[in-house]
Amino acid sequence: MTPFSLHPQLDADTHFVADLPLCTVRLMNDARYPWLVLIPRRDAIREIYELDSSTQQQLWQETTQLGELLMTVSGGEKLNIGALGNMVPQLHMHVIARRSDDEAWPGPVWGVGTAEPHDNETLTVLIDTLRMKIAELPSYSY
Amino acid sequence: MTPFSLHPQLDADTHFVADLPLCTVRLMNDARYPWLVLIPRRDAIREIYELDSSTQQQLWQETTQLGELLMTVSGGEKLNIGALGNMVPQLHMHVIARRSDDEAWPGPVWGVGTAEPHDNETLTVLIDTLRMKIAELPSYSY
Repeated sequence: MTPFSLHPQLDADTHFVADLPLCTVRLMNDARYPWLVLIPRRDAIREIYELDSSTQQQLWQETTQLGELLMTVSGGEKLNIGALGNMVPQLHMHVIARRSDDEAWPGPVWGVGTAEPHDNETLTVLIDTLRMKIAELPSYSY
Repeated sequence: MTPFSLHPQLDADTHFVADLPLCTVRLMNDARYPWLVLIPRRDAIREIYELDSSTQQQLWQETTQLGELLMTVSGGEKLNIGALGNMVPQLHMHVIARRSDDEAWPGPVWGVGTAEPHDNETLTVLIDTLRMKIAELPSYSY
């Protein structure tokens, strides 16, 4: 089995937050939206149905858990979840907490405007908060 | 428990295909993309994490199965899955088979251009094909 390595585009666009049992959780470097990306640590997988069924289940569970967590942390109004991968072929799940006053509302966030990087202080606080909440998840024992 | 009733916007935009154990499967009336919408038959649910965990699992399983099925039927190049609901609050999953020559590629399909209704003959063939393939799913016993 080839060892997992993160796609360079995902690496460039996001910051590491935590490793769940299956997925690496990263924060999109875009202050316009609370936006996580979950990447299953499996190499050469493009579609969810290419994973075996227990790994699929784990992926969905982590995606839903992180979605609820992000909504709590950010006070979002509507959760958006997406698996697209039209540009970056490595399987990754988008988890975005939307607000009715955000830039792209009510449309999807992808391809709208230009990312606005977080300032360092906000980034540190946000990642610390996410890590603290992730450490409290029932299935998280790391 | 309030009985399930389909949101009028989803009803207007889609055609009934089949009922899975949890979800009603409908085809988006847009010839530009092979595009299914899965609606769990649960009333007053807006977010996936509001479902109990076994129902979540069932939702994800049906979504993934129908995604793979749609890719096979349509010869799609990349599966897109999305749970947005920014406009229609009833929980529904989008399952879209994308091609690199489709109108919105590589962006998402939502909010791009105007839906082009299927002609009646194509619609009948497509729905019949989908029903036949759905009837072959291992978990489908109706």
